[in-house]
Formats: sequence, C-alpha cells, structure tokens
Amino acid sequence: MKRRYFDWAATAPPDFAFSGHPFGNPSSLHEEGREAKKFLEAARSRCAAVLGVRNEELSFTSGGTEANAIACFSLLAKPRRKDGADKGAALLYSAAEHPSVRENCAVLGRLGIASAAAGVDSGGAVSEASLSAALKKNPAPRMAFFMAVNNETGAAADLASLTALLRSRVQSPVHVHCDMVQAAGKIPFDIAAAGIDSAAISAHKLGGPRGTGLLYARKKFDTLIRGGGQEGGVRPGTENVFGAAAMAAALEKHAAPGALESARRGAELRMEALVAGLRKRLDKRFFTIPAYRAPADRRFSPWILQCRLEGIPGEVMVRCLDEAGFAVSTGSACSAAEKKRPVLEAMGVDARSRLEGIRISQGWSTTSEDVEALVRAIAGICEKLPRV
Amino acid sequence: MKRRYFDWAATAPPDFAFSGHPFGNPSSLHEEGREAKKFLEAARSRCAAVLGVRNEELSFTSGGTEANAIACFSLLAKPRRKDGADKGAALLYSAAEHPSVRENCAVLGRLGIASAAAGVDSGGAVSEASLSAALKKNPAPRMAFFMAVNNETGAAADLASLTALLRSRVQSPVHVHCDMVQAAGKIPFDIAAAGIDSAAISAHKLGGPRGTGLLYARKKFDTLIRGGGQEGGVRPGTENVFGAAAMAAALEKHAAPGALESARRGAELRMEALVAGLRKRLDKRFFTIPAYRAPADRRFSPWILQCRLEGIPGEVMVRCLDEAGFAVSTGSACSAAEKKRPVLEAMGVDARSRLEGIRISQGWSTTSEDVEALVRAIAGICEKLPRV
Repeated sequence: MKRRYFDWAATAPPDFAFSGHPFGNPSSLHEEGREAKKFLEAARSRCAAVLGVRNEELSFTSGGTEANAIACFSLLAKPRRKDGADKGAALLYSAAEHPSVRENCAVLGRLGIASAAAGVDSGGAVSEASLSAALKKNPAPRMAFFMAVNNETGAAADLASLTALLRSRVQSPVHVHCDMVQAAGKIPFDIAAAGIDSAAISAHKLGGPRGTGLLYARKKFDTLIRGGGQEGGVRPGTENVFGAAAMAAALEKHAAPGALESARRGAELRMEALVAGLRKRLDKRFFTIPAYRAPADRRFSPWILQCRLEGIPGEVMVRCLDEAGFAVSTGSACSAAEKKRPVLEAMGVDARSRLEGIRISQGWSTTSEDVEALVRAIAGICEKLPRV
Repeated sequence: MKRRYFDWAATAPPDFAFSGHPFGNPSSLHEEGREAKKFLEAARSRCAAVLGVRNEELSFTSGGTEANAIACFSLLAKPRRKDGADKGAALLYSAAEHPSVRENCAVLGRLGIASAAAGVDSGGAVSEASLSAALKKNPAPRMAFFMAVNNETGAAADLASLTALLRSRVQSPVHVHCDMVQAAGKIPFDIAAAGIDSAAISAHKLGGPRGTGLLYARKKFDTLIRGGGQEGGVRPGTENVFGAAAMAAALEKHAAPGALESARRGAELRMEALVAGLRKRLDKRFFTIPAYRAPADRRFSPWILQCRLEGIPGEVMVRCLDEAGFAVSTGSACSAAEKKRPVLEAMGVDARSRLEGIRISQGWSTTSEDVEALVRAIAGICEKLPRV
C-alpha cells in the first residue's frame, strides 16, 4: 500500500545517504513508528546476545561519556532523606577513572554528595589498602566507580575481586558502575561474573559510529535528566535507530567470544613484538609505564601501551611520529591539549616521566609490519634527539 | 605518505559504510585528529552561517532533548550563595513546553530550584497576564524557557515581544532559552531579533540523522555534566563529526532563507487546502485546536495542525488512518503511549476534545495530492464511525 507520511513533527524522512534502516520515530504508533521500534529492539537483542545480558538491561545512549554520566547523576536523582541519614548517597571512585567519571564525581561532591577517591598502585590498580583507606573516609558509599581497562595505560582491573572485596567491607548495598569503554570487544569481560551493577560501552571505539553508546544496568536507574521517556526513561530523546544497529554490528563483529579471542591473541603477539623491538633498539632509553609491565602481562590490555623514551617529551615524540606518518598520542584524546597527566600522577609516576609518556594503541587492522615500522621510526627519532 | 594509525584507544577506523568524513578523534593532535577537527569546525561554520550566529556560539549535541537539558541543568551548576539570597536560581517556563524542558524543570524543582509555570491562553501562547501571574509567584527568575513552535499544536510564539516583556518586568538579568526544534527550517526565526540567550535545534526533524542536535548560546554555559572537555566543555564526549556535517547540510538545505520561504509558502497552501477540505467534507464535525485557528494564521506553524473529529477518539483515528496508509499521531511521538495531553490541558481544551485530538504534520515532500488523499481518508473514516 502506498504510504503517505503526515508525522513530520515526530521525525522527517532523511535527506542523507543512510540506508537499510527505517526512518520512523520508534515512539510513534503508526506503521513507520512500529517498524522503527522493531528494528531498534532487534538491535538491542543483538547487543544483549553478544554481551550475555537481558534486553531490558540495555539502554542506548549517545556514547560512553553519556552512559557514565547517567550512572553518576543517578545519585542526584535519588531522594535525599530529611533526617540527614543519607550519607548513603556518598560515592567512591578509583583515582584513575576517565574524566567522564572522575570530573562528574567532583561535580557531585560540590553538590553535597560526599565522595572519596581510592588511590591506585604503580600499576594503576585499586589495592586492598587503598580501598580500605577510601572506605575509612567514606564508609557507606551508595555507588562505586571502577573502570575495566584504563584508557591511558591499558591497566585491566580484576573487577570480580574488587567488587567482592568492596561488598565484604560495606554493610549497605553498593551499586558498582564500570566504564567498559576500552574493554568491550578488546579483552574477555563477563559482565555477570564481574559483580557489577551497570556499565558503559562506546560504539566508535569498536569501529561503530560516534554518538552511540550503551548503558547496561541490572536494575532501572533513577535518572536525573528527563524528557520523552525513551529507553525506559533512562535516556530521553528520539532513539538513534541507525546508531543502535551499528552498535549491534560492531559488538557482533568484535566482541563475540571467538572473534575477540583471536583478535586478542594477535594483539598480544604484536604487543610483544613492539615492546621487544623497542627494548632491543633502545636499551636503557625505552621504559614501559609501569616499568615492570611485561609484554604478555594480563593485568594490562594488549591493545594499549603507555611508555616513555627518556629525554624526549611525549608531545615532541607525538609530533615527530606524526610527521613520519604515525598517529600516536600522549594520554587520552580528550586531554591531548592539556599538559596534566592525572592518571599517571595517581600511579606515582614522577613528573619527568609523566612528561615523557606516550600512548601507543593498536586495533584489529594493525599489522606486524606496522609495528616494525613504528619501532624503526621511534628508534630513528631517538637517534636524532640525543638524551639530554 | 602512508599513514599508520596507533591511536585506537582514541577512536577506531569505522567498519561501517559511512564515507566522506574523516574518522580521527577531533581532540587528537596528530594528522587524523587535526583533519577531523577541521571538518568539525567547517560544519560549525556552515551552521553558524545559516543561523546568522557566530561559530563559537554553537555546540553540537546528541539532539534537541540534550540541548534543552544542558540549558536546564546549567542552573544546578551555578554556585549557590550561602546567604540564601540565591532565589535568583529560580526558573520560569511556559506550561506548553516539550517534556525535555517541562519535566526537567520539575526535576530541578525537586532539587530545590524554585520554578513557576506561566500558563498559556487558548492558542497556546503565554499572555501578559499569565506572565505576570508567574512572576508574582517567582519574581526573579534566572532562567526562562519559551518554545518557538509548539510540537503538538504548531503555536508559534512571538519570542521578541515575550522576551522584551519579561525583561521589562524582571530587574535582575534573566537568561531566556528557546526550544527551536519545530521552528528551525520551518518558519523564519531570527535568533538575534528574538532576544534569546540560548536555543536548541534537532537534526532529524530537518532530514538529518538522529543523535545530532545544536545548542546555540550567546555566552558559555555553566554545565553540570563534565567529561573530556569537548565542545568548549558544554557537551563532553567524542564529537560526532559525521552528525555535525549532516546537521550543516540539513540546515543549508532547509533553513537557508530562500529555501525556507518557498517551502513555507508551499506548506501554507497545503495547510489551507487541508483545513478547507476537511471543513467542506466534515462540516460541524471537524474542528481545529484552537477552534479559531485560521489556515493562514501566522500565529501557527503551517507545518503542524492539531485538530479533532467529533465523536472519534484520536487514538482510533490514528489507527484507522494507519490502516489506510496514513501516518498521523495524536500528540508528540514521545507521549504517544500515554493518554494524557498536558499541552492541550494547559490551553484549556476540555477533556473530551483532548481525547479526540490528532496531530497532522507535513514536510517538504508532502504533495497536494497527499493532502487530498488524507481529506478523503478522514472523511471516509468519519462516515463509517457515526457521531455518538
């Protein structure tokens, strides 16, 4: 039947060259809306199947940052008790969290929600001692934030042990949120076994489009920001149907167990070659951060290496490599323009080494030949820039 | 030069079939990042040129809902004064606002920010009397929210008069935010002349992709949600470079003055034909909401009509039309599943008429023949469903 569309106030047929997804507004009751809704829910099912969770535990968001923020600000949405016994609204986070957690925790602190950062050890991990110290300051957190893989160092947390330890120390129920952005599709991560209550995933780190993320949550959040009630009220705004399908495709391609394991093995081999190559060529001048990180050390993601070349500021190395055709960074892209390295600082890295740090991160299309070329390029730059 | 990419932790090269936009993370300092940044800033300039504003006044967001929410929650980010003299944090909004404003104002109310809704008249406009009444309740709002075109009724506010009136009544500075989602690209709207301080635009209502919006702001916002500092800190999260370019293309195509005027003229002619046709075929049974709305009345957008067919619940009409191949809605898509019609209620529409309300909204590819077919279809349904 010829369809005639008179619901342009809900959404307009797209002008642009997307195809393969229905254009209707998933909240609309007509055929165009129902089709879009069906497509959206199919995308959710596909994501849930890869992640091993239930459909209703997943909300599509505009990215990892927003998924983290929804979790953080849910604390503000919780009703405060008038008798002042709402210390439970307090929060705890690891000192190495991404700014979309760390900075929002600071904002919540200014809004009266007591927060405490748990320090990290030289490998970027929250230790039993640092957790105890944080709990001494803040004994009954309602929420805790621990990232799965650090975006600057690749440090991979042992979430299952960490959440078990936290829960053994805190009497009241504590919700654990996990920033999984650098873990999803990169290292095996069993959401159920990790003992977490919610998690954030980003599509564009997995080859999907920007502007698309996922929030996993075992129980529905109290959400601060309201609107049209989409995504069960967790994330208002017309649903990004295309983005949802692209997220599903990215997860299926990279996060399904078989694909992930073989990709990870490749990443480990290339990481070993990278570190061995740099050590061989630049003996006594090349250091991993932390220095004791072994190439196949599973306490770190094989996709991300933080390292330094003695005597060469990270920024200089990034610029020289860029001129030679290599894209690397210092810390996170977000903070590329800033000189501060709070994550390395939290790990106790000294000021000079922090200044020298660079991040090398690889992906599924990185080749051994790319790695060899990078080693040669770094060695060449080091030759030209003698140690001061 | 062959480029080798080692910044996968910042963003991954896309798997999916997008083309024509650089994949780098605009915050990265290497060539891939700089290219993405250049592309993003070019998109911003194109949007600014169409809207007649400065580049630095525009932030890309994940949609209209988020743009409205950033404005609302900036009130929480403002430091509160300890002497209790921060009544200025209060807010004022029109009773017919979209849920992404209205519901967030309610949330802010629960968080201790005094708020007052200004009632609307039978046409959905904030009158001098209702503004005065709201100001009596709340004399020194720091922020006020007035939408440009109502998404359910098409009521087009006279923003310039409204903001002038408000400012003549309030001694302290008051920031006016305008939800422009149904105005941009639909009716002429001069941001500078409107006397507003910020505004929200959505791409997908203009044929652009979901997950993309714009926030205009004359001065930088205090923002509640933090992260990687993107978009001048106003909207953290890796920038949706593709979405930004698609937003620019949508604005250029539909909101540039020449295109807009000719499209609007077409919409007016079709709206006249629609209303005249329904009146002719369904004398005494068809009513516009409000009843006095004339087809070419410029107090209403010619793209949106709220109307009712006496004796037929809106939901029934939507379903019958859907079966006949026509997509229309009752109210907004967001609230399609709910029975409540708070906007119509605010306009003083009685309960039975609210139940009967349907929204017919058209776009640039709607034809006169579509309109004639819709008139025939509605008339046919009315014949089968006699008045009770």
